[in-house]
Amino acid sequence: MNLAILFGGNSYEHEISIVSAVVLKKVLDEEPYFIFCDEEREFYLIKASNLNAKTFSSKAYKKEKKLILKQGGFYLEGFLGEKKLEIKCVINLIHGRDGEDGKIAALFEFFNINFIGPRLEASVLSFNKELTKLYAKSVGVKTLDYFTLKKGLQTSFKPNFPCILKPVRLGSSIGISIANNEEELNYGKDVGFEFDDTLLVEDFKKDIKEYNLAGCMIKDELIFSIIEEPKKKEFLDFEQKYLSFSGHSELIEADLSEELKEKLKEAFSKIYNPLFKGALIRCDFFILDNEVYLNEINPNPGSLANYLFKDFNSTLKNLANSVKNEPKIKINYSFLHSINGQKGKL
Amino acid sequence: MNLAILFGGNSYEHEISIVSAVVLKKVLDEEPYFIFCDEEREFYLIKASNLNAKTFSSKAYKKEKKLILKQGGFYLEGFLGEKKLEIKCVINLIHGRDGEDGKIAALFEFFNINFIGPRLEASVLSFNKELTKLYAKSVGVKTLDYFTLKKGLQTSFKPNFPCILKPVRLGSSIGISIANNEEELNYGKDVGFEFDDTLLVEDFKKDIKEYNLAGCMIKDELIFSIIEEPKKKEFLDFEQKYLSFSGHSELIEADLSEELKEKLKEAFSKIYNPLFKGALIRCDFFILDNEVYLNEINPNPGSLANYLFKDFNSTLKNLANSVKNEPKIKINYSFLHSINGQKGKL
Repeated sequence: MNLAILFGGNSYEHEISIVSAVVLKKVLDEEPYFIFCDEEREFYLIKASNLNAKTFSSKAYKKEKKLILKQGGFYLEGFLGEKKLEIKCVINLIHGRDGEDGKIAALFEFFNINFIGPRLEASVLSFNKELTKLYAKSVGVKTLDYFTLKKGLQTSFKPNFPCILKPVRLGSSIGISIANNEEELNYGKDVGFEFDDTLLVEDFKKDIKEYNLAGCMIKDELIFSIIEEPKKKEFLDFEQKYLSFSGHSELIEADLSEELKEKLKEAFSKIYNPLFKGALIRCDFFILDNEVYLNEINPNPGSLANYLFKDFNSTLKNLANSVKNEPKIKINYSFLHSINGQKGKL
Repeated sequence: MNLAILFGGNSYEHEISIVSAVVLKKVLDEEPYFIFCDEEREFYLIKASNLNAKTFSSKAYKKEKKLILKQGGFYLEGFLGEKKLEIKCVINLIHGRDGEDGKIAALFEFFNINFIGPRLEASVLSFNKELTKLYAKSVGVKTLDYFTLKKGLQTSFKPNFPCILKPVRLGSSIGISIANNEEELNYGKDVGFEFDDTLLVEDFKKDIKEYNLAGCMIKDELIFSIIEEPKKKEFLDFEQKYLSFSGHSELIEADLSEELKEKLKEAFSKIYNPLFKGALIRCDFFILDNEVYLNEINPNPGSLANYLFKDFNSTLKNLANSVKNEPKIKINYSFLHSINGQKGKL
C-alpha cells in the first residue's frame, strides 16, 4: 500500500532509529520506501537491499538518491525535473529529537503529508517528562511524585535514596542514572546535564512492577496490544533495547488479574484519546498497591512495538488508512476586502 | 541587517498577520524581506512596494517570486539554478495556527534558520489556553479558575453567568463569546465549536482590570515594554485589533503602584524564562485584589507589540543578534560500529 518509513534524525537516538527500521523491514509483509534523515537533516531514499548498519556507519548512504520535501510529498530530483514519490502514508520512526519532539509532526502537517506518528501537541507533551506528568494529571492518570533540578540553579532539595535522575527530554535510557548516595547524585547530575538543562528526580523503587501496553485508535476504536512485563536489570541499556525491538523470545502476556488489565487499558485510553490519534504509542506503567501509575509515553516506540501485536501488519495498514491531517482553513479575505473599502487604511 | 518578516499562514488569523506585516513595515527603520506563506503554504517573496491589502485579497501575490524552504534558508528558483536569500534572522509574524502552534518553530529548527519567535515547546504551551494554565501553575503564576467543554461530550457542568467561552487554540478574539444565560451559552458553544473541539469556560468579570506587558530576553537580561491598560469594550473585535497594532494614539503607561508593576514583571519573568527565549512575547494579565493572574500569552503579538517599546528598532535588532537554534547533535555511529563487530546481528 505504498508505506514509507522515516528514520534517523538529528537525535541522540539516531542509531536506535536505524536499528528500529532494520527490524521493521523484517516484520512488514510489504516492502515500504525507506527514507533516511541524516544528521544534517537531508533526506535520502535508501534501497531496501542497502538497509544495514554499514550503509550508515560508513556514510555510504550519501550515494543513495536525495529527496526534497515540498508541499504534498517527497520528491526525487532528476535530469528531467522532479518526480514525486507515490506514498500513501509515512511512518515516523525517528526516535527522540526531531521525531518525537514535534518537528516531524509539524513538517508533515505543514507539507500536507499523511503520517503515522504523534501530532504536534501530543509530541511536545510526551517528549518532556515533566509535561507528561502535568498532562497525565489533567486527564486523571497518576504518576510518581517528582522534583526537577535545573542546570545552574542551586536547590535545597534533598532526595530520598536511591533515586533516579532522568533528563526531561530524552528516551531510550540515555543520560539516566540511579543514585544511592550524595556522591552518586552529583555524578548523575553531571551526566544528565550533558543532555538536558532539566532533570527529573523520582524515588527509585527497585521492586516496582512495570507493564507496557501499546495501542492505536482506528475509526474510534482502540486496538490494544498484549500487556508485557518487560524483563529488566536495573534499567535497559542501549543494546538490550535493540534486542527488545525484535521480540527475540516468545512473548507471554503479563500475569495480571483481569481487574488490573482493565485498569491499565483504562489509563491508556485516558492518555491516548484524543491527543494521540494518528499514532501507535506504547505506554509504560507502574503498578503500586493495585494502582496504575504512568511512567512514560513512547509515541514512536522502537520498531512500533510490533512484537506486542497479534496481527501487526493488519493493524498498521488499518491505521495508515485512517490517519488524517488537520483540515485546511479556507481564507476568503473578507476582512481585507472590508477595510479596503475604507480609504487610506492599508 | 537583513531581517525577513514571515506572515500569512493557513490560519484563521491569516488576514490579521497581513495587517501585522503592513504595520511593521512602517515601523522598521530598515526594509526587511517580506515572505508570505499563502493558504496552500507556498512561500512568496513580496516586494515591499506591493505590500498592501489588495495584493493578497486579489491574489496578485501569485505573480511574485516563489521561494523554496531547504536546509539553511529560503531559495529563489531561477533559470540558472537556485539562489539563497541572505537573511540574518526571520521574524515569525504568523498569528494563530502555523505561526503560534509550533509548526514554524519546527520548520526553522529543522532547516536551521535563525528566527525570532517562540520555540516548539513554548508554542504548544501558549497556543492551547488549557496548557497555558497548567504551565503557569507549574511556574507559580496564577490564572482564573476554568472548566473545559469537549465537543460531543455531555457534561453536568453549570457555569456562573455571565461566563466567557473561548476555543482553547485560537487568538485574536475569534470564536469567543460571552454568555449571560443558558440560551447564550448554547449559542456560544455552537460558535466556539466551529473553531475547536475544546472550549474553555471562565467566569466573565466585567470590571476586571487588564494589563499588557511585552518583553524579550537579550543576553540573559529581560527587556520590558511599558505596561499598557488596553482600552476595551466587552472585548476587542477584529478591526479594533488592527488599529491597536499601529499604536494610533499616544500611549500612556498604566497608572499602577510600583509594587503592582513589579508583581507584573515578576509574573512575566516566571512565564518567559527560559521557555520563551528567542521570542518577543506579550503577556495579558488581570489584577484582582492586588494579585496578578495570567490571562494569556501572545508569543507572536500583533506587529510585535512595537508601540509598547520605547526603542523598538534597537530592541528588535539586539534580539535578532542574540537568538540561537538548538545545538546540533553529532552522530558518531559508535553503537552501530560496535554491533557490526558482532556477526550477523544487523
